[in-house]
Amino acid sequence: MIEARTDDILTLASGAPLPPDVPAVRYGARARALWRMMAAELPVPSARLIPAARVRAIAEGAPCDAVALLDGFADPPLVSVRASPLERSWGGPAAVLDVGMNEQMRGRLAERIGAAAAARLHAGFIVAYALRVARLDDALFADLPLASEPETALAEAQRIFREETGAPLPEDPAEQLEEVIRSFARAWEGTSARLLRQAQGAPADAGLGLIVQAMVFPLGPGVSGRGRVQFVDPESGAPGIFGRFAAGAAEGDLSEIRENGIFLAKDPRGPSLEDHAPQSLAALREAGARARRHFREAMAHDFVLENGRLWLLDAAPADRSPRAAIRIVVDLAEEGLISREEALLRIDTGLVPALLHARVDPAAPRTVLARGIPASPGAAAGRLVFTSQAAQALAARGESAILVRPETGPEDVRGMHVAVGVLTARGGLTSHAAVIARGLGLPCVVGAGEIEIDLRARTLEVGGERLVEGAPVTLDAATGELLAGELPLLEPALDRHFETLFSWADEVRRIAVRANADTPADARLARGFGAEGIGLCRTEHMFFEGDRLTVMREMIFARTEADRRAALERLLPMQRADFLELFRIMNGQPVTIRLFDPPLHEFLPHERSEMQALAEALDIPVSEVMARTEALSEFNPMLGLRGVRLGIIMPEIYETQARAIFEAVLDAGAEGVAVTPEIMLPLVSAAREVDLLRGRIAAVARQVEIERGASLDYRLGVVVETPRAALRAGEIAEGCAFLSFGTNDLTQMTYGLSRDDAGRFMSGYVQHGVFPEDPFHTLDTEGVGELVLMAAERARQAKPGIVLAICGEHGGDPASIAFCCRAGFDYVSCSPFRVPLARLAAAQCAIRARAAGGSDERTG
Amino acid sequence: MIEARTDDILTLASGAPLPPDVPAVRYGARARALWRMMAAELPVPSARLIPAARVRAIAEGAPCDAVALLDGFADPPLVSVRASPLERSWGGPAAVLDVGMNEQMRGRLAERIGAAAAARLHAGFIVAYALRVARLDDALFADLPLASEPETALAEAQRIFREETGAPLPEDPAEQLEEVIRSFARAWEGTSARLLRQAQGAPADAGLGLIVQAMVFPLGPGVSGRGRVQFVDPESGAPGIFGRFAAGAAEGDLSEIRENGIFLAKDPRGPSLEDHAPQSLAALREAGARARRHFREAMAHDFVLENGRLWLLDAAPADRSPRAAIRIVVDLAEEGLISREEALLRIDTGLVPALLHARVDPAAPRTVLARGIPASPGAAAGRLVFTSQAAQALAARGESAILVRPETGPEDVRGMHVAVGVLTARGGLTSHAAVIARGLGLPCVVGAGEIEIDLRARTLEVGGERLVEGAPVTLDAATGELLAGELPLLEPALDRHFETLFSWADEVRRIAVRANADTPADARLARGFGAEGIGLCRTEHMFFEGDRLTVMREMIFARTEADRRAALERLLPMQRADFLELFRIMNGQPVTIRLFDPPLHEFLPHERSEMQALAEALDIPVSEVMARTEALSEFNPMLGLRGVRLGIIMPEIYETQARAIFEAVLDAGAEGVAVTPEIMLPLVSAAREVDLLRGRIAAVARQVEIERGASLDYRLGVVVETPRAALRAGEIAEGCAFLSFGTNDLTQMTYGLSRDDAGRFMSGYVQHGVFPEDPFHTLDTEGVGELVLMAAERARQAKPGIVLAICGEHGGDPASIAFCCRAGFDYVSCSPFRVPLARLAAAQCAIRARAAGGSDERTG
Repeated sequence: MIEARTDDILTLASGAPLPPDVPAVRYGARARALWRMMAAELPVPSARLIPAARVRAIAEGAPCDAVALLDGFADPPLVSVRASPLERSWGGPAAVLDVGMNEQMRGRLAERIGAAAAARLHAGFIVAYALRVARLDDALFADLPLASEPETALAEAQRIFREETGAPLPEDPAEQLEEVIRSFARAWEGTSARLLRQAQGAPADAGLGLIVQAMVFPLGPGVSGRGRVQFVDPESGAPGIFGRFAAGAAEGDLSEIRENGIFLAKDPRGPSLEDHAPQSLAALREAGARARRHFREAMAHDFVLENGRLWLLDAAPADRSPRAAIRIVVDLAEEGLISREEALLRIDTGLVPALLHARVDPAAPRTVLARGIPASPGAAAGRLVFTSQAAQALAARGESAILVRPETGPEDVRGMHVAVGVLTARGGLTSHAAVIARGLGLPCVVGAGEIEIDLRARTLEVGGERLVEGAPVTLDAATGELLAGELPLLEPALDRHFETLFSWADEVRRIAVRANADTPADARLARGFGAEGIGLCRTEHMFFEGDRLTVMREMIFARTEADRRAALERLLPMQRADFLELFRIMNGQPVTIRLFDPPLHEFLPHERSEMQALAEALDIPVSEVMARTEALSEFNPMLGLRGVRLGIIMPEIYETQARAIFEAVLDAGAEGVAVTPEIMLPLVSAAREVDLLRGRIAAVARQVEIERGASLDYRLGVVVETPRAALRAGEIAEGCAFLSFGTNDLTQMTYGLSRDDAGRFMSGYVQHGVFPEDPFHTLDTEGVGELVLMAAERARQAKPGIVLAICGEHGGDPASIAFCCRAGFDYVSCSPFRVPLARLAAAQCAIRARAAGGSDERTG
Repeated sequence: MIEARTDDILTLASGAPLPPDVPAVRYGARARALWRMMAAELPVPSARLIPAARVRAIAEGAPCDAVALLDGFADPPLVSVRASPLERSWGGPAAVLDVGMNEQMRGRLAERIGAAAAARLHAGFIVAYALRVARLDDALFADLPLASEPETALAEAQRIFREETGAPLPEDPAEQLEEVIRSFARAWEGTSARLLRQAQGAPADAGLGLIVQAMVFPLGPGVSGRGRVQFVDPESGAPGIFGRFAAGAAEGDLSEIRENGIFLAKDPRGPSLEDHAPQSLAALREAGARARRHFREAMAHDFVLENGRLWLLDAAPADRSPRAAIRIVVDLAEEGLISREEALLRIDTGLVPALLHARVDPAAPRTVLARGIPASPGAAAGRLVFTSQAAQALAARGESAILVRPETGPEDVRGMHVAVGVLTARGGLTSHAAVIARGLGLPCVVGAGEIEIDLRARTLEVGGERLVEGAPVTLDAATGELLAGELPLLEPALDRHFETLFSWADEVRRIAVRANADTPADARLARGFGAEGIGLCRTEHMFFEGDRLTVMREMIFARTEADRRAALERLLPMQRADFLELFRIMNGQPVTIRLFDPPLHEFLPHERSEMQALAEALDIPVSEVMARTEALSEFNPMLGLRGVRLGIIMPEIYETQARAIFEAVLDAGAEGVAVTPEIMLPLVSAAREVDLLRGRIAAVARQVEIERGASLDYRLGVVVETPRAALRAGEIAEGCAFLSFGTNDLTQMTYGLSRDDAGRFMSGYVQHGVFPEDPFHTLDTEGVGELVLMAAERARQAKPGIVLAICGEHGGDPASIAFCCRAGFDYVSCSPFRVPLARLAAAQCAIRARAAGGSDERTG
């Protein structure tokens, strides 16, 4: 398509030749939409398009030939001046209407629409001119009786204008137009517009295009009025006609249209435009269909009916919920209006998580009781409970419980399992509640500091209101709000359109997507969301759950290796069953198991009462429990005795785990599920650690093979999560089938920054630009990323074809996924709820890479 | 010098032509010493040298032509076979003597030395042969009456040998010799010798040379006997004649010589060789002087007098204390026997720390009461105390206190300041006691788990013994022992020779040595040890000491920035005085000040009683103290809110510090001390952090300049201690005058390993070779070192000429200093007590680099 190559002022008028296409970057988005509507032969009032460069020149004092601008409009002219920046919101007025209004014009209009309406328009123009051009205070005009006594209001407006500026408003339309254009040019350079542009990340040299457009009036004897229309359901994306029409509404007053407008198509709920003017509605439908084809997008339009004649004033993408967004692009692609690739690229990956969770019906009335930090997405409605027991009791009766706690601990996990939502008064994004809830896919809000919980009275007080246990509430974890009453929820939108779009994504993407899944529930969720395997199965929980914790503690308190082995022996069948269940669910897909990672002290009690209980259970003095707990405590647990270090120092832990995995593999095989497990070592910092453990695990495999008379295949790999493992990746890769970058810990160690402890200053750091992004959300490509790329290169050099992956939470972040695609990784692994997002992000990377003439696979 | 080029068996005999020089690596150290003695025309019994390759071949079955070997010795021959490995200890016998002994030889010897002596030699040979060659159990010969009834013993030995082996010991000398040689060859391949070699780090293909040497006898009618001599005092290194001589002592029985021998030169304490045979002593002196010149080393010799005739059996470097080692090389260099460079290279840097501390007189009788971990070197004698108060009371009376505590905390620091030594029952090398003691240069032993302290009774029990407060004890922190009684100590040896050697070191080294010094005491110590400035002045203590802690806590509990500033204001004059004092002591030498680094919670109390006291002092409820303490606590303090992060979040802390520094600089200037302070930012991970703080510090500088009407010069730098700071060093360097690598933290973060928490497994890790060395002692060149070099390169590229340094504890480790020299760093900074070691290590690097034809400065 040929674009306008100069910075000329262009004319759009039906009948006149269409000028070359106007680039939005020079003329603004609205000007471009106007041009496209004109090109589509849609009914658009004629207009002149002034490029941003001209507007800037005018701001700097260049002449503005308003007389020439008005040439071609009606004589005498009546026009609007509309802002056309690149981004639609810019901090200044959208338009100044009725430029050209004067005594003469008012007289002419009075003939058409009556003296009162004409006076009201005139008065409105004077006020707009006074505020925008003369920069008068709007308080001066606050009391004008515009609606009730328009002619009085006009006289009063003229008086105020004259008194304040020392002169009446100029009558000459050209003079008015020049002043209005200059006022826009100045406003663009003003402080508020500049700050807003900076906040939106607009380039420093962005400019403001302007449109001078013939006025059309939603006034007159025939069907006249103003409306807003779109041809898809904003909630579902289904085709239809949606919007409102209001006779006589002033431009820009959308709320009036929304609140007082009538329906467009026939509707049982009330009167409609179709009832009044079926041919106008037909024209609207026809224009909408034409715009859809032309824009290759579901559009929304502001329109005017002037004595039954349709004018479109604007065209912008239709409003849409995340779910509607999916349906719209799928429909467009299935109609052949856009390609599948374009459909994929048009979906902002940020919308995807919202699709996977229930949400509060936006139509429901919201009474906010308390606010906290959204920690795990979704929404839930149910009854307030304060204990796990109460949650379980409610669940047993088939009712939904919203669990509210000051903060949660391991003892609350049972309650969280049966609750539909969790709210805590304390804690941040990495608190126990937040982490567990995300793992369970449970809506969760944390750190709601305003609520006061009285656990004994079983009440919650907030803002003077008191809620008792059993009170109906709704938790909106998308906004972090606790709402009064059980509100209606909209369920996740994993419909045909979702499935279709994501099947397209899977066809184009070049990087696999696995899930971080620790439990059968996680694994089922992951498969449901289209994961192609488990990239990270953390095994710690297998030592925490229920009775196992007691056995684990016995192991920790054992005095000899033999006693430790005996305790671990008792955990073996449970672990084997866990692994078997995972293998069954994944049904032959790869399963990557990370061996035991946390420090042992995480398994010990901290409260004195718990210590006493443990002492009784183990039949040892409580002093011994306390001494051992103290002996095992660490200054910096993240940098302590855990991961492979523990695996090397206490070989029996990893040996039992390896045995449980291998026996489960053979059991699965007997059921017809072939598994090649991938065993992954955490916290490696030296190749020798891997060498040592490779030998021990191989010995366990041989032993199981002999005992069972069967043969075993497995792969051994390493989580690269210390900077040193990244630096020594060449050496480490030699003994590994795969390396998976644990970017959570790698980021913590590269920055010297604990994620748990960073909360106190991270937001300030990001706000002040010390860090451009929170490196725990988006991979720090400059630091951590360099280490990752260095490691990948060294690993491939040492072992061509080695499988490379990422299993930190960055695996679910689009920018980080793009990084992995560029690096040619084999897969990303992320939490189940991020899997669809990752599939889409990976598809977008592949499409963009292909478009850039390259490929998303590594070069060289 | 020409070396023997083949693996020939060589002959050393006076009168015969000297064979080419024998390399120790092929013939062994003893063979080479023999060759050198022969070359020096010293009286050495003639010998044949069998290279290791030949011995290995014999072990593998090659023939051993013993007849040819004996050719040239007396007929009938009587020889010794001596081991000559590369390292003198090898796990097998040093020698088998009297090979060739048989009935005929006994008869001949009986004529010279009497029948009884001859029978004793014969019996001794049979026992040696039985043990070494026939591999009989030595218990069989335990009851032989060798000394009292030698002829009975002989008959009995012969009988046992015959009964156990089924045949008499062969009479043929050649046959005997062949068997003895084969037994040595086998022993070298035996398990114990192999393990010992491995432990010593010998190469896998190391071999054993052998020496067949004519026997000389310390027996006979004239002055006959055996002795050991060296010509320097082993304690001081002063010239003299030292050793003992014993008539008739058997070879190898050094203890007999040591215990029963007479003095060599005339001595008031007892009889001497000089009394008996002045001409023999003169020959010995003459031989010693000749050996010294020839070996260019102070040597020790085993010698034999055979009827007054002197034979030297061996030559090895003289025994020497660390102090003597210094004097010996300085004397040799001053005599012109060796160059200054060689003198410097000959001193093992590991000896240096011992020179700087007092030690227990090795002659004193030691009764060990308890053992612990040597945590801070030195030795101290004094009276046992259990509290700081008691230590202060004793010190006030001018007496020395050894402070014993279960473990120490901040409240014990006053006591440590006045004590002469510290012992704790608990804790490791990074415990409070260890760290503080090293800082104070105070001898300290920690983790003496056997002692039981009763603080109320003020007693200490160990091994059934009870010591009360005031008991005289000696703490030997070199060995980690608590000794009974106040033993005599030898004071540090910073004498003329020390000064001379270290002045030579300073002349050749190319890298500067600074000290990590926080206090005036540190700084004085550092200057005394030759530091060229302060490379790291930690400022935390300025907030901890005495009353300041209370003000600091007020600052932490302040609710507003204004209140925080008010509290800091009160600390300002104290800090300014601290800096001024440092500047005075360093007298114009550079002083690098690291701004506040630790997390705030380190300043808060942990015990409930302390919290109550604080609540009273601040006049706030104790609940608030507890809440604030809990709010500030961190999961991983090392990775938390500290360093620049705190400096950015609470600007007033760094601003106050900067002001204190600048004002002290101007005050020092007024006293005539010109200082250009170097201000260093800790825990940087992004360039933007530096940019922000550079601006703030510059603003403080400008303000002080305006207030004082003076101009200020200072340099800003960064401690590179996060991996990310290393990766982004280019960007960071742009705004810095210097980068100093904080390799302690950098190692912790690169490994993901907290030094405090690594203690539990580090020794096991190193023993099993998982890590080749403790990376906190010796810089991990493969991982951390790569980051350091990468950072250095990037920093230089961005800012040529930027000053680079190291300020971790590695700055005092010779291997790590060598790394810094190779990397072309400008200086290393280490604890004051490591400064001399660093000066020497730096000199050795420079000499070696020059010798390698390169330079110790960076190339390119």
